[in-house]
Amino acid sequence: MEDILYYAGADVGGTSVKLGLYEKGPDSEKLAEKWEIPTDISDDGSHILNDIAVSLKKVCADKNINCQSIAGVGIGVPGPVDFDGVVHECVNLGWKSVDVCREFRNISGIPLITVGNDANVSALGEMWKGGGQGFSNLIMITLGTGVGGGVIIDGKIHAGSVGAAGEIGHMTVNPDETEFCNCKSRGCLEQYASATGIVRIAKNIMNVPDSEELDAKIVIDRAKAGDKAADKAVDKAMEYLGMALSNVACVTDPEVFVIGGGVSAAGEFLIKKIEKYYNMYSMNTLKNKKFRIAMLGNDAGFYGCIKMVMDNA
Amino acid sequence: MEDILYYAGADVGGTSVKLGLYEKGPDSEKLAEKWEIPTDISDDGSHILNDIAVSLKKVCADKNINCQSIAGVGIGVPGPVDFDGVVHECVNLGWKSVDVCREFRNISGIPLITVGNDANVSALGEMWKGGGQGFSNLIMITLGTGVGGGVIIDGKIHAGSVGAAGEIGHMTVNPDETEFCNCKSRGCLEQYASATGIVRIAKNIMNVPDSEELDAKIVIDRAKAGDKAADKAVDKAMEYLGMALSNVACVTDPEVFVIGGGVSAAGEFLIKKIEKYYNMYSMNTLKNKKFRIAMLGNDAGFYGCIKMVMDNA
Repeated sequence: MEDILYYAGADVGGTSVKLGLYEKGPDSEKLAEKWEIPTDISDDGSHILNDIAVSLKKVCADKNINCQSIAGVGIGVPGPVDFDGVVHECVNLGWKSVDVCREFRNISGIPLITVGNDANVSALGEMWKGGGQGFSNLIMITLGTGVGGGVIIDGKIHAGSVGAAGEIGHMTVNPDETEFCNCKSRGCLEQYASATGIVRIAKNIMNVPDSEELDAKIVIDRAKAGDKAADKAVDKAMEYLGMALSNVACVTDPEVFVIGGGVSAAGEFLIKKIEKYYNMYSMNTLKNKKFRIAMLGNDAGFYGCIKMVMDNA
Repeated sequence: MEDILYYAGADVGGTSVKLGLYEKGPDSEKLAEKWEIPTDISDDGSHILNDIAVSLKKVCADKNINCQSIAGVGIGVPGPVDFDGVVHECVNLGWKSVDVCREFRNISGIPLITVGNDANVSALGEMWKGGGQGFSNLIMITLGTGVGGGVIIDGKIHAGSVGAAGEIGHMTVNPDETEFCNCKSRGCLEQYASATGIVRIAKNIMNVPDSEELDAKIVIDRAKAGDKAADKAVDKAMEYLGMALSNVACVTDPEVFVIGGGVSAAGEFLIKKIEKYYNMYSMNTLKNKKFRIAMLGNDAGFYGCIKMVMDNA
């Protein structure tokens, strides 16, 4: 038992914290446990880190794991992170400036704490145990309410100089757009290729009464079933995405793109469209990149947190 | 004299090879010599590497430098390079598949040879001794006949999985373009922000008789002198560039952009326009990046070659 070490990952979201505990022995390693706890954003989110530490200790106690054998904890947060593990603002958690590294080290007594942005740790998680296995240079794109992204270079998170690398959702794909994006710019990829964006395009193309509820899944399901207007809407969204990823490839030339988030449940139907437009907009050298669907769903974050802290150990 | 080592850089272009010899002593280091030789592209460019080796030995002899003290040579080539220093095609040199590392090692007897793409080594050179000094995450953009680019991450060249990282000139900035780019795609940045592109835009905007010779310098000089049509042309080119660089920032979030190539001689006049449009298209977190003019001109390549091989020593 002496040689077994544990690494924990905590992916902190606005609603819940997803946690994982990873067991690393001399000959084998595996996920020992995964669970989640609610995120308490009261009092400016000041209970969050303590709640994580308490929950981690409880799970260890339940499994007869000595807390001393936890060698490190990786923490993912929904906002940009400084190189020294300080978060300057996390709107979803109620945080202003929080020194996550130092605070969690003090609370937990665990010496090795590594902090990363949630989109970045998800990308790392998918590289390690998900759709990006076998690759070390990848771009992950998360198509959810917004469009997020993570950049992995040589097997490590590339966070960027102000923590904004991978903000692929805010690449300008349509300078003629008149509506504003959440970021206050106009024509961002997120305005088209997110779940919200697909519905927005669909409402302009499909003949849908205002009273009818429409979500991205309905639009995509109708497109799959042969509804021409719905297909045109999904196609338009994926054309913007394919063009944006072609532009991403001109910058970092990754081995593979991993597509995650709720919208990615549409699987191959979506991948085919993305590939078609990606190749249409790409120069020869960059054509025919690999596209994979993400495999870990909401677990990608804590897996990435575990990998991130293990790499630092 | 025993402790002094030398590193050479050779930036191989279609017309000439620019060379530099760098002296590294225990307490000081400096460029010992720079020179150039013509590129002999006859016989499928099969004399090029030998010519470089001969010239390097001659310069060493002239300067009483023992060839044994050349610790390494960096070579820049105008095409994509494999991780093991193999070039698969260099149209400008007449090369098909050439194992530059192995061949130059055999010819010269120098054990350490490192090969890189010319745009990438120029970026590294500007980081080391030029406009990017003090930074380790930068994007260099070369505005010449075409638009080239190099990506430096954590002080090293990021070449990409097929050597096409930094192909910023082939980002799609105008999907509605009807004319074709050299890469056979349409709407590439290169069609607008290169010297050729600026002239193309100018001819559509300015009232210029077909007989009149127009080049990018003339257009920019007229714009500087207050010619409104010329200014509109330069502005349009820089709007495409600013938007493209804003999209680049969403991917790698660099510390600084370094603008080089013949067009960059226009200096601050150009930078002001690029910054204006860059900020217009960027999300808040990414606004107000640093923009610098390249400082090394045609020497950037061999400087980068020297740095590249020294980093490998």
